[in-house]
Amino acid sequence: MTGTPGAPPAAQPIRLAHLDAHSYRDWAATEHSTVILPAGAFEQHGPHLPLGTDALLSSAIAEAVGARTGAKVAEPLSYGYKSQQKSGGGNHLPGTVSLDAAALIAQARCIMAGFLRQGVRNLVVLNGHYENYQFLYEAADLALEEVRAGQGASHGAGPDPTVLLLSYWDYVSEDTLATVYPEGFPGWDIEHGGVLETSLMLHLRPELVDMDRAVSHPAAELPRFDRLPVVASRTPDTGCLSAPDGSTAERGRLLYEQVAADLAADLTAELGLPA
Amino acid sequence: MTGTPGAPPAAQPIRLAHLDAHSYRDWAATEHSTVILPAGAFEQHGPHLPLGTDALLSSAIAEAVGARTGAKVAEPLSYGYKSQQKSGGGNHLPGTVSLDAAALIAQARCIMAGFLRQGVRNLVVLNGHYENYQFLYEAADLALEEVRAGQGASHGAGPDPTVLLLSYWDYVSEDTLATVYPEGFPGWDIEHGGVLETSLMLHLRPELVDMDRAVSHPAAELPRFDRLPVVASRTPDTGCLSAPDGSTAERGRLLYEQVAADLAADLTAELGLPA
Amino acid sequence: MTGTPGAPPAAQPIRLAHLDAHSYRDWAATEHSTVILPAGAFEQHGPHLPLGTDALLSSAIAEAVGARTGAKVAEPLSYGYKSQQKSGGGNHLPGTVSLDAAALIAQARCIMAGFLRQGVRNLVVLNGHYENYQFLYEAADLALEEVRAGQGASHGAGPDPTVLLLSYWDYVSEDTLATVYPEGFPGWDIEHGGVLETSLMLHLRPELVDMDRAVSHPAAELPRFDRLPVVASRTPDTGCLSAPDGSTAERGRLLYEQVAADLAADLTAELGLPA
Amino acid sequence: MTGTPGAPPAAQPIRLAHLDAHSYRDWAATEHSTVILPAGAFEQHGPHLPLGTDALLSSAIAEAVGARTGAKVAEPLSYGYKSQQKSGGGNHLPGTVSLDAAALIAQARCIMAGFLRQGVRNLVVLNGHYENYQFLYEAADLALEEVRAGQGASHGAGPDPTVLLLSYWDYVSEDTLATVYPEGFPGWDIEHGGVLETSLMLHLRPELVDMDRAVSHPAAELPRFDRLPVVASRTPDTGCLSAPDGSTAERGRLLYEQVAADLAADLTAELGLPA
Amino acid sequence: MTGTPGAPPAAQPIRLAHLDAHSYRDWAATEHSTVILPAGAFEQHGPHLPLGTDALLSSAIAEAVGARTGAKVAEPLSYGYKSQQKSGGGNHLPGTVSLDAAALIAQARCIMAGFLRQGVRNLVVLNGHYENYQFLYEAADLALEEVRAGQGASHGAGPDPTVLLLSYWDYVSEDTLATVYPEGFPGWDIEHGGVLETSLMLHLRPELVDMDRAVSHPAAELPRFDRLPVVASRTPDTGCLSAPDGSTAERGRLLYEQVAADLAADLTAELGLPA
Amino acid sequence: MTGTPGAPPAAQPIRLAHLDAHSYRDWAATEHSTVILPAGAFEQHGPHLPLGTDALLSSAIAEAVGARTGAKVAEPLSYGYKSQQKSGGGNHLPGTVSLDAAALIAQARCIMAGFLRQGVRNLVVLNGHYENYQFLYEAADLALEEVRAGQGASHGAGPDPTVLLLSYWDYVSEDTLATVYPEGFPGWDIEHGGVLETSLMLHLRPELVDMDRAVSHPAAELPRFDRLPVVASRTPDTGCLSAPDGSTAERGRLLYEQVAADLAADLTAELGLPA
Repeated sequence: MTGTPGAPPAAQPIRLAHLDAHSYRDWAATEHSTVILPAGAFEQHGPHLPLGTDALLSSAIAEAVGARTGAKVAEPLSYGYKSQQKSGGGNHLPGTVSLDAAALIAQARCIMAGFLRQGVRNLVVLNGHYENYQFLYEAADLALEEVRAGQGASHGAGPDPTVLLLSYWDYVSEDTLATVYPEGFPGWDIEHGGVLETSLMLHLRPELVDMDRAVSHPAAELPRFDRLPVVASRTPDTGCLSAPDGSTAERGRLLYEQVAADLAADLTAELGLPA
Repeated sequence: MTGTPGAPPAAQPIRLAHLDAHSYRDWAATEHSTVILPAGAFEQHGPHLPLGTDALLSSAIAEAVGARTGAKVAEPLSYGYKSQQKSGGGNHLPGTVSLDAAALIAQARCIMAGFLRQGVRNLVVLNGHYENYQFLYEAADLALEEVRAGQGASHGAGPDPTVLLLSYWDYVSEDTLATVYPEGFPGWDIEHGGVLETSLMLHLRPELVDMDRAVSHPAAELPRFDRLPVVASRTPDTGCLSAPDGSTAERGRLLYEQVAADLAADLTAELGLPA
Repeated sequence: MTGTPGAPPAAQPIRLAHLDAHSYRDWAATEHSTVILPAGAFEQHGPHLPLGTDALLSSAIAEAVGARTGAKVAEPLSYGYKSQQKSGGGNHLPGTVSLDAAALIAQARCIMAGFLRQGVRNLVVLNGHYENYQFLYEAADLALEEVRAGQGASHGAGPDPTVLLLSYWDYVSEDTLATVYPEGFPGWDIEHGGVLETSLMLHLRPELVDMDRAVSHPAAELPRFDRLPVVASRTPDTGCLSAPDGSTAERGRLLYEQVAADLAADLTAELGLPA
Repeated sequence: MTGTPGAPPAAQPIRLAHLDAHSYRDWAATEHSTVILPAGAFEQHGPHLPLGTDALLSSAIAEAVGARTGAKVAEPLSYGYKSQQKSGGGNHLPGTVSLDAAALIAQARCIMAGFLRQGVRNLVVLNGHYENYQFLYEAADLALEEVRAGQGASHGAGPDPTVLLLSYWDYVSEDTLATVYPEGFPGWDIEHGGVLETSLMLHLRPELVDMDRAVSHPAAELPRFDRLPVVASRTPDTGCLSAPDGSTAERGRLLYEQVAADLAADLTAELGLPA
Repeated sequence: MTGTPGAPPAAQPIRLAHLDAHSYRDWAATEHSTVILPAGAFEQHGPHLPLGTDALLSSAIAEAVGARTGAKVAEPLSYGYKSQQKSGGGNHLPGTVSLDAAALIAQARCIMAGFLRQGVRNLVVLNGHYENYQFLYEAADLALEEVRAGQGASHGAGPDPTVLLLSYWDYVSEDTLATVYPEGFPGWDIEHGGVLETSLMLHLRPELVDMDRAVSHPAAELPRFDRLPVVASRTPDTGCLSAPDGSTAERGRLLYEQVAADLAADLTAELGLPA
Repeated sequence: MTGTPGAPPAAQPIRLAHLDAHSYRDWAATEHSTVILPAGAFEQHGPHLPLGTDALLSSAIAEAVGARTGAKVAEPLSYGYKSQQKSGGGNHLPGTVSLDAAALIAQARCIMAGFLRQGVRNLVVLNGHYENYQFLYEAADLALEEVRAGQGASHGAGPDPTVLLLSYWDYVSEDTLATVYPEGFPGWDIEHGGVLETSLMLHLRPELVDMDRAVSHPAAELPRFDRLPVVASRTPDTGCLSAPDGSTAERGRLLYEQVAADLAADLTAELGLPA
């Protein structure tokens, strides 16, 4: 798997789960070792997309960034925070299995602290589920505090490691948006099961998309507040907040390539990675 | 992906993450809907096996059981409880990134409660990392309590769902052991990076195993107590507690087929699944 | 204080902390009893605004909504979630004293569950600190679950109470934005210590604003990721993410009146309050 | 608000929430910077006193102490621990909205640690709700431990800051008691909605007291144990444990002045504040 | 041990830990089954008393009450909340090993809920360590809430069980005080290692007391506040807050007999136990 | 009790709860100070053994080891983790009162950290309840981390203390097994209320055993999985997983002496105690 000594580093897998521990040890000790932790969800995405869409997409983009930067990709957070009606249709819908805040924070905190304790220089959390963001932020803050507190006694006191946290859609450019949504972009919050996710999946995992089951309907019109318990009728019957009309693999390819390139460039600049 | 109505059920993916939400909803409502949740770890397994071995193996066995029983497989718990020296070499070793007890319990509890609330009839937790077991038990107990408490008010009061918890190696038969370990079985606790895991990986994911890096050494001799902090020298340099000498894909195939068959038979009988 | 029997209800204070318990009991039992819980923070807002700005503003808007709808206003959450650099300058800045996620969720959960258990029909959480939102959502979800679980046994089983959660700036209209920001709106995230908050404070609490200390500087240019630990130099020296240039009490009055009116109208419609 | 440079310090507000961040920063760095954190409750106090009585009183006394010592007053803990029947009538009474132990400890711990991390030299927690005390003690202990653990790595290692914790009634002198309760003092535990609190409120916030609604009744006779669930009939119908008969603004003034003076003197001596 | 059927009930042990499970089951189902849970601490009590004093005393008094009422005694909470300087000398002193609030609450909650779920009618928590009280109260409140929430679904819905919580010294009568402290009672808070505890131990466990090591010194004079970190010099060198001068086994016997009798009478009346 | 200076150390009690604080302080400061913390449960053990069996046995063995090594014995953990059907018959059985994972971990963590902070050199956790083990491991790991984090600031930085964790039955030798179970050893997991525990109790606490109530029945045949909720009929009516047939005080004596001797020897070697 990991090749014989002397083999080019490209032979190493990008996914850390596929790397052996001794190769990992050597790699983690290098100056620019960077781990990308994709975060997703297990959440309904309508009748045409699979339940694992968010983790599949964030993992795929993470791997593309890894290929461009030398970063490696950790196993994704496959379960995410509760789906909210305004961004995901609602946690009451069949197929959605979520973590509460405490569980998500605890899990992400342990994983982040684990990598940071082992000398990894940079950790990039690449989020693919809207509702996760703030809880991942808390986890990162607690993990850094925990690692610093532990360093006083038993760990070497190197420079503070760096954590970056981002959602991949914040890297979609205006140009790309104009191409993907020729009739105008409806907003990220209702991009649930819509053109972005469907196009990306058509490009990356077409065997998991069934456009025959896709349903055309107007975008959901949701209030400015969150209401609990939800008024279920505000979510379209499909569970999608906007319809996937106009999704194509080609648009998915454009999204994927542009985001991966810009994200890789941003990380390279921010973290001082070798170009 | 999920086929047109009337298509044979075999067309449906076994992994829930690949299923769409509407198909999931219909399936979950069936009389015998059974979800298998594989549990693994992100843990060093020596120089010849990948870090993700435990989750890869428990997932693969879960899929084999699913193919035999109609159960579906949830996304695995990819990170597990801290590696203990007596069963995994120790949590201090590079490559091992673990959850603490609270994080593992919270994560598993939310996921289990999520499936049980949606009407899934049976949940089988299939463990592949020795140290996880008791924490998964606690999670199952808390999840059932939580689901019951919630049912009084807002949920329908159907029959209690069932949770089964097991480690796959408890299904290895005496006959299989005799074949795989012709010179005598050393015990499950030091089966870390040894013949069982290596053979299974050689059968299931040979591209992730590098037998050229495997090292032969005597099995670790560990005391009857756990000591913290660990005396690092008690773990062999490879990180394996016993050497993979004698591992073959054929032995892996035997282990895999026998365990999957017996486990499927046991679940079928216990849960009253259609034969 | 609360007047003699027969006195007009207008005599009752809008702030619950100023109401006596017996009057509260009678009011809470009415058909449309609605509590507004303002959420703020204790956070630096530059050299010209006070540390308590967020709670002062959310409380003032809550009282204005209460005056229009008959809702009453609970004591605010005076401390909020950690200030993030991209929306508040960063938690490292002097004057900022924050709650972590667990503390904020626990506090808000107890308070919400407390009101809901006492028969209050509607609870509106009115947020005034960007970073709070997701944690307040989690608190609301847990509080409703807790109240429902408890109702099975010892509490009467009336209809489920309703919780609404919103941030007040989501009610600023396009027209108001155009008036307040004649040169273009920079975005809510960097509206920290800027024109919106400063104008509102000049209208509502002018004695707590010192425009002589206000500093003009370009808006912060922040990356698309959160970085931890923060690069402190990305926050302007003032601690404001955009300068308060152009803030006036008149613009504050416009913001205040328009938001209160639209928010009151929205709540009245959503909750079926008497017009 | 905060005045121009050179203006006398008396111009600075005593309440930290009214201070700007830059003035706060300069003040916190001074040798004797002392923050008083008032703790109250949101709790029924009978038909004649408002629900916010405890926080109103502890805040008012804190401000009086601040005026005498140069200490500044943080935003109060407006919600407190569950009302116990023996000291507050019981948590079941309408109007009482409480925190559980975990929420109160977490909230107070974060706030205390926040001030201590910023270099404030002394933190005085001034309690006004009987049931809070032990939980505030735990919060203080945990906050100090947390701040110390964090100091090893990333914070400067100055002298340990000091936390004082007290309930204001412990500063009522024998002389004052004799004047306020000419017929004998009934004990602090049943001083709930009685002469002390009513007199203080008549002095400090007369517009929030309605003596026309005050009811005369014998003091509650409560057992030596706490019983749960409470026997509701042991609490007088008013919710007060003793009647406010004999309350006057003049007695309130005496209590207020004497307590503030003695408390200020005690803090000055203990903390070495400038006289 | 448990005797043959027909044997008089006096043959049953008072300590539940000495009872077999089948006898327990039959006893718990009786109409007045009452469990007493003693709470203590592991805490320094000066040079003349053992570290386990608090649990030894509360257990002994519990057994005396059991002998008078038919109640049975559970295994004590042998570790208690952190020793506070004003009531126990301080948690920094050698020999004191304490639980934090979360641990004490969690432990006591589980134990209380466990007995209540099994149909025990009354649970009496008999406290012997001053600092424990509020945390035991929280545990009792949470345990009752948990048991009620669980009853909706899977448990029978009998009448609510009753929990009483008390500290044994609240049952020392005025007469006893006058006899034990002929020169005046110094107050319960500084009764740490003093006449009460020493006399009781001399009566109950004389082999564990070494009066030759007892030291005479003035009672500690402690401020009205708690200070953290403690000023260690405020605690006398012995660790006792008042000296054991005048302690005798006879005074211990008086205390023990009077408290047990009055407590038994109070419980009998309150719980409707057979006289 | 503790004798006069110069008295032989044998005069000191082995149980720490019986030692005074000053003697403890001196002892803890010695080079080899070792505390044994016994862990048990409050759990049904059939009709012939008392509920406290597990703590009684682990405490007795701890004292025997202490007598041989100079270690001292802390108060036991009298309540343990939930009884599992496969090792204890199930948590649903009358008489069993258990801690959940969080409570057990929190309690054990505080106690361990308490001893370690006070300079005790070695802490040995001696487990007597199968289900406790992993939770005690987590507690030990967290306690060490906590003590290390705290040492950076306020504690002296001596060598790391050592924690050992073990279950006493892992020290039963093959020879002893052959003698105690002449017809073959059935396995530790179903040794619940069986020959091992009954024999030990007959040797150590015969007055608490009633062999007249012992019932002969075949050993339980339990599946390879844990099922929740349990199928109650899988546990024999007695609550024992194997019958106590063949238990004798003599076998108990053999078990006790052999285990204590081997355990003492192992600790002496591992911890470098004086022989």
